[in-house]
Amino acid sequence: MTVHLSETPETPSPTGSGRAAGPRPPRFLRACRREPVDATPIWLMRQAGRYMAEYRALRERHPILELIKTPELACQVTLQPIQAFDLDAAIIFADILPLLEGMGLELEFVRGEGPVLHNPLRTAQDVERLATPPPEETLAFTLEAIRLARRELDPRGIPLIGFSGAPFTLASYAIEGGSSRHYTRTKGMMMDAPETWHRLMDKLATMVGTYLRAQAQAGAQALQLFDSWVGALSPQDYREHVQPYSRKALSIAAQAGAPIIHFGTGTGGFLEEIRDAGGHVIGVDWRVDLDRAWKRLGTGVALQGNLDPVALLAPWPELRRRAQQVLDRARGRPGHIFNLGHGILPQTPVDNVRRLVDFVHEATANSRTPLP
Amino acid sequence: MTVHLSETPETPSPTGSGRAAGPRPPRFLRACRREPVDATPIWLMRQAGRYMAEYRALRERHPILELIKTPELACQVTLQPIQAFDLDAAIIFADILPLLEGMGLELEFVRGEGPVLHNPLRTAQDVERLATPPPEETLAFTLEAIRLARRELDPRGIPLIGFSGAPFTLASYAIEGGSSRHYTRTKGMMMDAPETWHRLMDKLATMVGTYLRAQAQAGAQALQLFDSWVGALSPQDYREHVQPYSRKALSIAAQAGAPIIHFGTGTGGFLEEIRDAGGHVIGVDWRVDLDRAWKRLGTGVALQGNLDPVALLAPWPELRRRAQQVLDRARGRPGHIFNLGHGILPQTPVDNVRRLVDFVHEATANSRTPLP
Repeated sequence: MTVHLSETPETPSPTGSGRAAGPRPPRFLRACRREPVDATPIWLMRQAGRYMAEYRALRERHPILELIKTPELACQVTLQPIQAFDLDAAIIFADILPLLEGMGLELEFVRGEGPVLHNPLRTAQDVERLATPPPEETLAFTLEAIRLARRELDPRGIPLIGFSGAPFTLASYAIEGGSSRHYTRTKGMMMDAPETWHRLMDKLATMVGTYLRAQAQAGAQALQLFDSWVGALSPQDYREHVQPYSRKALSIAAQAGAPIIHFGTGTGGFLEEIRDAGGHVIGVDWRVDLDRAWKRLGTGVALQGNLDPVALLAPWPELRRRAQQVLDRARGRPGHIFNLGHGILPQTPVDNVRRLVDFVHEATANSRTPLP
Repeated sequence: MTVHLSETPETPSPTGSGRAAGPRPPRFLRACRREPVDATPIWLMRQAGRYMAEYRALRERHPILELIKTPELACQVTLQPIQAFDLDAAIIFADILPLLEGMGLELEFVRGEGPVLHNPLRTAQDVERLATPPPEETLAFTLEAIRLARRELDPRGIPLIGFSGAPFTLASYAIEGGSSRHYTRTKGMMMDAPETWHRLMDKLATMVGTYLRAQAQAGAQALQLFDSWVGALSPQDYREHVQPYSRKALSIAAQAGAPIIHFGTGTGGFLEEIRDAGGHVIGVDWRVDLDRAWKRLGTGVALQGNLDPVALLAPWPELRRRAQQVLDRARGRPGHIFNLGHGILPQTPVDNVRRLVDFVHEATANSRTPLP
C-alpha cells in the first residue's frame, strides 16, 4: 500500500549547497532505522572506482591491493566520491577477498582477468587447514583506514559504511579460485561433500561476523554484507546451505549495534529468506520492482536500491525518468535508501552521477515519510 | 494449495521397458494442456549436445553450423538423446542465431568464444536495413529437418518441439555482437534510441512469430520461445521494451495451434509479466520454488522446470533427492513438465541423465493429476 504525500517544491531544498553550512542530519542512518528523513539518502555501490579520474590517477601509481592495504591511500580513495558528490554515506575502500588471504588463500589481481586465488579449496583437508585469525591481525589495514576516514568524515556529518563479503560469495571465490559462470565446483562441494561445505561455511561465518563487528568497533557506523553471487542458487539451496551461515555472521556483526544492510543480486526468488537471515536493510537489485519487494518483505525492514547501473550511461532525461520510477515505487514508505542494484560501471559519466545524487535529494526534499 | 494424491507403487510402471510395446500416450502434449497424465513427462534443454559421445563424434567431423544446416544431420542429432533415453519429447536440433543471419547479420561460431556477429546493429540505419524474409526462404533447413525428424519420431510416439529465440534475447546478440555480461549496448539502444529499439523489436517479433508458426506447420507439435537472457532486465524494462514484442511473436505463433512453452531465466521478479505475454506453459529456472511460482501464476498455465543443471553432476542419491524435491513442489497439480532450469552442461555424466529420466517416470507413475 502506498501513501501519496503532498510535495512542496516551492520550499527551498535543504540539500545541495547545504553541505557547506555544517553537519547535516545523518539521513542515511535514520533511513536504515526507518525513521523520517528530510530527503531520501543516496550512496552508490562502488562509488569510489574507475569511473572517477581521481581514482584512475591513483591506480596508475598503485596496484589495487596496495591501495587497499595502505590505510592512508584507502582513506583517500574513500573520500574521493564524497568530495565530488553530495552523497549521504561513504563506504570504506576495501575488497571482500583479503579476508580469504588471512585464512590462507593466495590472492592475486590479474590484469584483465580479475581476482585469482592460486590455491583454491577442493578437499576436506584444504578446509581443515583454513585459519580463522582475529581480523585485528590480518585485516588491520582496513580497520585503520576506517579510523582515518572517520576523522575526515565526521566534520562533514557523513557516516561511514564498513562491509564484508557474505559466506556464500566468499566460498564461491575460495572454491572456484576466482569468478565463475556456473559455480559447478561450489555447488559440487555442497552436493558431494556436505560436511566439508558446512565446515567451510561455519569458518567463513565466524570470520565474516567478527570482521564486520571489528569494523563497527573501529568506527563504521553501518555495515553491509555483500552476497553478490547468491542469486546463482535455488531457494532450497539457499535455505539449506547458506542461510544458517549468513544468519550466524549477521548475528555476530549485530553485537556492535550498527545497522546492517544485507545485499544480494538475483534474489527475486527468495527475498523472504534473505530477510530472515538478518539485516535492518535489505539491498535488492533492479530485477525486482521495489514496491513488490516491499510488499513481500513487510514493514520490518528498510530497502536499499534499485536502479540498473546501466541507466547511469543514459542521456540525463532518461536517467532522471528511471530514477523517478524508483522513487515512485518507494514513495510514502519510511526506510528507502537510494542506490544502484549493483556496482557502478567503469564507463559511467561523472556528470550523470552528480545529477542523479542531486536529483534524488531535490525530488524527495520535504516529502516526510511517516513512521510505520 | 497442494492436493496430496495416493500413490500405488505396487502397480507395474507403464514406462521404461514400455517403449518397445508401441506408441505411448503423448504425456508431454497432455501436460502442456494440463490434462491428466500417467506419469510426469520429462525432456531436457540442450538434450542433444556435447555431454553425449555420439554428438561429440559428429561434431568432430562437422562444424556446428553444418550440423544445423544439413537437414539429415540435424535430424540425426535430434534423435540421439531419444535413442539413448526414455525422454518424452524431442527438440529439433537448431540454434537461435541463424534467424539473424537471414535478416542480414554475419554469424560465426568461434571456438572457445561462442557466437560472433560480425556486423552488429548500432544505428537506426542498421535496423532499417534488416530484412524480414519468409522463414521458408532463410530457415528452410530447419523446417526440412523437422519433416525428417517427424518421420522417425512418429512410430515411437514421441512429439517434436520446435523453437526460436525471443525478440529480446535475439536483439541482445544482434546489438552486442555476441554474448554479453552487462548488456550495456542493448540497454543503451533502449534508453538512447527508443524508436530504433521498437523498430528492431517489431521486426524481430514478426520474424520469430512467423518462424515458430512455420515450424508448427512443418510438423513441430509444440513450440518453445527461449528468452534466455531476459533476466538481465528490470520488470519495468520488460513491460515497456520487451513484453509487447514477445506477445506479438507468440500471438503469430499461436495461429498454428500447437502448445507453446515460454521460457526465460532470472525471471523471478516478473513471472506474471512473462505469463501475460503468452504461452500455455511457463518455463522457469531453478532460482524460484516451483510451488511459489505456481501460486503466483495461477492454474491457467502449465509449468516447466526446474532442476539446477549443476545437480546432474552430483552423485546419484543427491541428484535423486533434488529431483524428488522438484516433484514434491509440483505434486497434485496438472501440467508439470519436468526439465532443467537451463541447458544441460557439457560435463554431465550420461548415466545421471538416464537415471533422472527413469526416476521422474517411476516416482510419478499412476499419480494421476486431476483436471483443474
